[in-house]
Amino acid sequence: MRQVYVNGEFLAEDMAKVSVFDRGFLFADAVYEVTSVVDGRLIDFDGHIQRLRRSLAELKMPFTLTDAEMLAAHRRIVELNDLTEGVIYLQVTRGAADRDFAFPPRDTPNTVVLFTQVKNLVDNPAARNGQSVVTIDDIRWGRCDIKTVQLLYPSLAKSEAIGRGADDAWLVRDGEVTEGSSNNAYIVTKDGTIVTRPLSNSILHGITRVAVLDVAKSLQMKVEERTFTVEEAENAREAFASSAGGFVAPVVKINDTVLGDGTPGPVSQRLRDHYIQRVRESAI
Amino acid sequence: MRQVYVNGEFLAEDMAKVSVFDRGFLFADAVYEVTSVVDGRLIDFDGHIQRLRRSLAELKMPFTLTDAEMLAAHRRIVELNDLTEGVIYLQVTRGAADRDFAFPPRDTPNTVVLFTQVKNLVDNPAARNGQSVVTIDDIRWGRCDIKTVQLLYPSLAKSEAIGRGADDAWLVRDGEVTEGSSNNAYIVTKDGTIVTRPLSNSILHGITRVAVLDVAKSLQMKVEERTFTVEEAENAREAFASSAGGFVAPVVKINDTVLGDGTPGPVSQRLRDHYIQRVRESAI
Repeated sequence: MRQVYVNGEFLAEDMAKVSVFDRGFLFADAVYEVTSVVDGRLIDFDGHIQRLRRSLAELKMPFTLTDAEMLAAHRRIVELNDLTEGVIYLQVTRGAADRDFAFPPRDTPNTVVLFTQVKNLVDNPAARNGQSVVTIDDIRWGRCDIKTVQLLYPSLAKSEAIGRGADDAWLVRDGEVTEGSSNNAYIVTKDGTIVTRPLSNSILHGITRVAVLDVAKSLQMKVEERTFTVEEAENAREAFASSAGGFVAPVVKINDTVLGDGTPGPVSQRLRDHYIQRVRESAI
Repeated sequence: MRQVYVNGEFLAEDMAKVSVFDRGFLFADAVYEVTSVVDGRLIDFDGHIQRLRRSLAELKMPFTLTDAEMLAAHRRIVELNDLTEGVIYLQVTRGAADRDFAFPPRDTPNTVVLFTQVKNLVDNPAARNGQSVVTIDDIRWGRCDIKTVQLLYPSLAKSEAIGRGADDAWLVRDGEVTEGSSNNAYIVTKDGTIVTRPLSNSILHGITRVAVLDVAKSLQMKVEERTFTVEEAENAREAFASSAGGFVAPVVKINDTVLGDGTPGPVSQRLRDHYIQRVRESAI
């Protein structure tokens, strides 16, 4: 049985609980990170912790654990669960307090939860075959750059996509793709340029996005950070998504349009291969 | 110590817990209702249960409890906690499942939580003195009519309002007031007309709002359901908010503008008095 971290203790997963008064449960007053594990080692850990601290700061949420304590908890949960490949989910909430929209006292202890999930990240059938996406209106709040647990709409969108026979949803605001339900979205134009939406309050500032764009540049690929429309995506040569859990995940169909020959394109595959190589070299 | 309802059991509040895998905790995949209690009896219970069922349906969330079971749980929690005056909070989630954006199987048991809070609803100093509000940008998602626990922004807004020396925030989209952080917003114009925003996806469809508008009409007051601007609110003769926990709550200051003589106006007070009378007559 999985061992789950709850406020400093490791518990069997069926004993891992939080108070019904936790503000993560009552107000979605919580932020999270997902760190991938390959060969039992952590990928981009520093980037995830930096982004966590940014999310906390944006929400004026006090937090007392040090980076070293966070790293120790991540390493320990990998060890306790013999995790070779998968992800570590981390959630931090503003703690438990009697229900009130106003923040509780600043010294209210955070709730901190970590758990692992076993996943095939490197040898992943979804990446081998490519995924299909459908586009769905983006009606999320105005601060999608903060990694909060207000994930109901992405969850609804993903479930709707699956109901429509696709693998995932790409969200669309004002005719332009913002991002996937839990990943950043990219297209490769007919002239081979990688296009992805620039950072703003409308999308998550992906840790994997940074690495992927860095890999693309190191391979002398042409990258443009600009918005793109659904029509442009349907007319693209290739498309892909990036996320901690999906790495570079080729997209082979957008709505009813099959891209190219319906298999992962060469740019996406090359990026994925080099990203995985980088991961293996830099994991800690 | 409070007795809290968790999935059919009544537990001491410090034992009232939910799984860290609960989708209410991980995805804000949960809806809620707050029912007021006066003289130990429930106010507008049927309206709250109807709205709960609408929220569940909009989110395609299965739910197995009957209205009679819900009523029995509400009555029992009042009894166990000797609640004379206050509120009962009810939350329903899509249940616990290993973390995945896609919905879990439809037969995943809901998590259902109820707890009480003691509050002075009738003899409430905030109503006697009137409240001050500041206006803050409304950047919430596009389905504020569904009563989900995605309450982080209202919580941030209320906390910012308090930090600015006010009691609450009124949210503003495109220059027009949508609603308060956890209540519907109204103004009374110079000619005595009560103005409140019409129902749409932008605001909660308040159960108390229905009752208040009904009371206003029974008193032959003029009511207009239309949007109003911040400027119009600052130039109003009176203003007030409605909610299950606040009834009719007079607002006496909006941003830097004191309304009238800075005390609750006659229309607000008359509405509040008649609303309370109605509550006492119709509570079950």
